[in-house]
Amino acid sequence: MKFATASIAAALALATALPASAQTQKPEDEIRYRQSVLNVVGRAMGPMGAMAQGKAPFNAAVVQKNSALIETMMSLPWDSFGAGTDKGAPTKADMKIWKEAAKFKQAAESSQRASTALVAAAKGGNEAAFKAAFGELGKTCKGCHDDFRLKEFRN
Amino acid sequence: MKFATASIAAALALATALPASAQTQKPEDEIRYRQSVLNVVGRAMGPMGAMAQGKAPFNAAVVQKNSALIETMMSLPWDSFGAGTDKGAPTKADMKIWKEAAKFKQAAESSQRASTALVAAAKGGNEAAFKAAFGELGKTCKGCHDDFRLKEFRN
Repeated sequence: MKFATASIAAALALATALPASAQTQKPEDEIRYRQSVLNVVGRAMGPMGAMAQGKAPFNAAVVQKNSALIETMMSLPWDSFGAGTDKGAPTKADMKIWKEAAKFKQAAESSQRASTALVAAAKGGNEAAFKAAFGELGKTCKGCHDDFRLKEFRN
Repeated sequence: MKFATASIAAALALATALPASAQTQKPEDEIRYRQSVLNVVGRAMGPMGAMAQGKAPFNAAVVQKNSALIETMMSLPWDSFGAGTDKGAPTKADMKIWKEAAKFKQAAESSQRASTALVAAAKGGNEAAFKAAFGELGKTCKGCHDDFRLKEFRN
């Protein structure tokens, strides 16, 4: 009983010390949250992809807005891949995310850095600089998807 | 045939004139997108709600970060409630969104304004100002949910 009380006190102290973003969430909520964030990223990538491929005219304002949004989003989903969130709702998350956690962390950090670089490139309003930085970001997205995202949902 | 060709030309001209964010999306993608955005909003509201209720200590840095995120998010979902997006995937969107479009637009704009006001209040790092502005934002969320969100998903 003494141990249990001490554990509860420690847990409460920990909960208070943790940033609010690390409050406990159900696995299905974590899965939904990370999918939501990455869905917003995907939507923001779309118009820039069209520009990068020459299918839409270069629009510096859209590039600046969307790259800022992506940079903001890229800080959000990774904490939601914590222990116990490998299942609980349909997910494309490969178990390698948890088995090769250090590699996954590196991949996530690469994407974050590439999104920051895109924001910097976008500020100049230069199409060539945008295309180069967008290409780099796209590579990090694809790399992480190739390594850590399944083709189909699993439960 | 002449009419069809003219229509296509007009459609292409329109597509070019539209902002990239208004590119055509499938209804199910629009539904998923607006749900994703509002899921991110909900997650960001959580820790601030705990602070507002005195269940967590006031943390100015978290308030500033989360309110900025919410303000960014609040500009995104409304275009995805366009014509034809009332069905296509499970949704809690009430048909009143399309039947009372002007009222829905007002509700959305109220939330956007309240999120901007919260960002301004958060900058000062004052707990009472935060609580007041957060309460106002919460009211606009609740108002829109009460009027335009169903209790259960429909197809």
